[in-house]
Amino acid sequence: MDLVRELLQGDRRALARLITLVENNDPRKEEYIQQLFPHTGKAYLIGITGAPGAGKSSLVDRLLEVMRRDGFTVGVIAVDPTSPFTGGAILGDRIRMQDHALDSGIFIRSMGTRGSLGGLSRAVLGAVQVMDAFGKDFIVIETVGVGQSEVDIVKAADSTAVVLTPAGGDSVQTIKAGIMEIGDLFVINKSDLPGAERTAAEVKMMLELKEEPGWRPPVLPVISLNGEGVAGLWRSLLEHRRYLEQHGLFEARRRQRAARELGELVEFLVKSRVWENIRTQISLDQLIEAIALRRRDPYSAARELLRQINFPD
Amino acid sequence: MDLVRELLQGDRRALARLITLVENNDPRKEEYIQQLFPHTGKAYLIGITGAPGAGKSSLVDRLLEVMRRDGFTVGVIAVDPTSPFTGGAILGDRIRMQDHALDSGIFIRSMGTRGSLGGLSRAVLGAVQVMDAFGKDFIVIETVGVGQSEVDIVKAADSTAVVLTPAGGDSVQTIKAGIMEIGDLFVINKSDLPGAERTAAEVKMMLELKEEPGWRPPVLPVISLNGEGVAGLWRSLLEHRRYLEQHGLFEARRRQRAARELGELVEFLVKSRVWENIRTQISLDQLIEAIALRRRDPYSAARELLRQINFPD
Repeated sequence: MDLVRELLQGDRRALARLITLVENNDPRKEEYIQQLFPHTGKAYLIGITGAPGAGKSSLVDRLLEVMRRDGFTVGVIAVDPTSPFTGGAILGDRIRMQDHALDSGIFIRSMGTRGSLGGLSRAVLGAVQVMDAFGKDFIVIETVGVGQSEVDIVKAADSTAVVLTPAGGDSVQTIKAGIMEIGDLFVINKSDLPGAERTAAEVKMMLELKEEPGWRPPVLPVISLNGEGVAGLWRSLLEHRRYLEQHGLFEARRRQRAARELGELVEFLVKSRVWENIRTQISLDQLIEAIALRRRDPYSAARELLRQINFPD
Repeated sequence: MDLVRELLQGDRRALARLITLVENNDPRKEEYIQQLFPHTGKAYLIGITGAPGAGKSSLVDRLLEVMRRDGFTVGVIAVDPTSPFTGGAILGDRIRMQDHALDSGIFIRSMGTRGSLGGLSRAVLGAVQVMDAFGKDFIVIETVGVGQSEVDIVKAADSTAVVLTPAGGDSVQTIKAGIMEIGDLFVINKSDLPGAERTAAEVKMMLELKEEPGWRPPVLPVISLNGEGVAGLWRSLLEHRRYLEQHGLFEARRRQRAARELGELVEFLVKSRVWENIRTQISLDQLIEAIALRRRDPYSAARELLRQINFPD
């Protein structure tokens, strides 16, 4: 496969093309991933998550500068709900990518949310494989940490930073969003705004409720606009990495990720085959009409469908 | 089944218990849904969605007052990411439910996000069935409209209102979140704040890009704190309902919902059976270890698993 060889030789265009193929569920995706797979497993994955408006993008931009100064190469996957109507990448991301276009040590890719079949999570994991095989030292996955699927995505990371802001009343809302438990680090961004200390104190209090032994997530004030505190965030990330390595947890996270990838693939294959079988063998219209008219309940309809395609009990 | 009979006779405790059973995936869930199903299909579903902090809860509370004044009974399903660590309902919702506890025409249920298997969406659809069979005229589904799964939930609604706020810069962020296309109505909440008119203008502009014939989503200024504009929102909801009915779209939405329910059930059954077969027949540890160590790629591992359980190609 030329494309894979080009990627392994460091060709950025091959990197971009392979990610696109993976994201679009190209028929050759499986083949590519299989070929790339032995070359993966070296990159360290950082998840950055937080509510819309928490300033994740500018924080990541600042973080990139510090990481690059230390000589590391970085891939960024910015998971971004698609823009309305068009489904395309939004202008801001294009501008953002241009900012780093001259630095060959950085590669940024935006991804929109895909509808069905857990598509987004699979697309992100695929892009991670490609960037990893390409040889990136770190891969940053930036995602809106509000929805279940979006939270699931950062669960694949080795270290996850949850970004909060002191913006009035918002902190509690964000904390409600169930992202507390996935944070290895907590960033209070825009910490020059009033209420920053209160927000930090609230987060620390919630973390103390946890009462688990082991890594204690730091709460880090940051101002991504001027870069204050970003070096500290980078140090904390490296510290967490060391902690995982020293406690044998790094391997545990890798196994978790492998289990998840396997699980998602099994479900994807199973669902694809079942729907293919149903579509080629059965006309669903009547069944759906019967359910809509309450003549048939969805459970018995679903069971009948599976019987008709000889799905094993 | 006593519980179902009690529900159909209007017993609120039976309503609460059945929703809990459905939410917790009780083994009798299928049986209950099958019995309730012929009694469903009468309720009208309203989706209310928006970013955290947009004031959805207080807006719904105000809307409830107006709906009750018109003599309608209402069920509310508030989809709320679980509180951190505890997994329980948060205090605010308990208080909120108490507010309406004396009004037997209102039934409010909070639901947290459940992990795997599309659990939340199935739980919400189940609760809708139960409330519908109970005889609620309207069912309001209130959800954070940021994540993919959360957006999917409101797609089940007949009319969906997207709640935005003029809070600085937030509007664009929220618009990014991909919820524009699901809105039948747009509410600018907190419209006494500066920037409200600009936000409304932005939304109108984006809606004009759509260029589709048919229903034109209104953009409605509301102040949920004092109730201003809420009666107008209610009128618009009824107008949209009439529009759907007059254009035969109501049935189309019902068929869509039936198709989705059937689809989700098929996938749920398929995944459950596949995992059950895998768990009882195969030890996954070695396979996961091999993937984690890059000795085995996830695709070939997934395909082997499916071969081992004789899953049809």
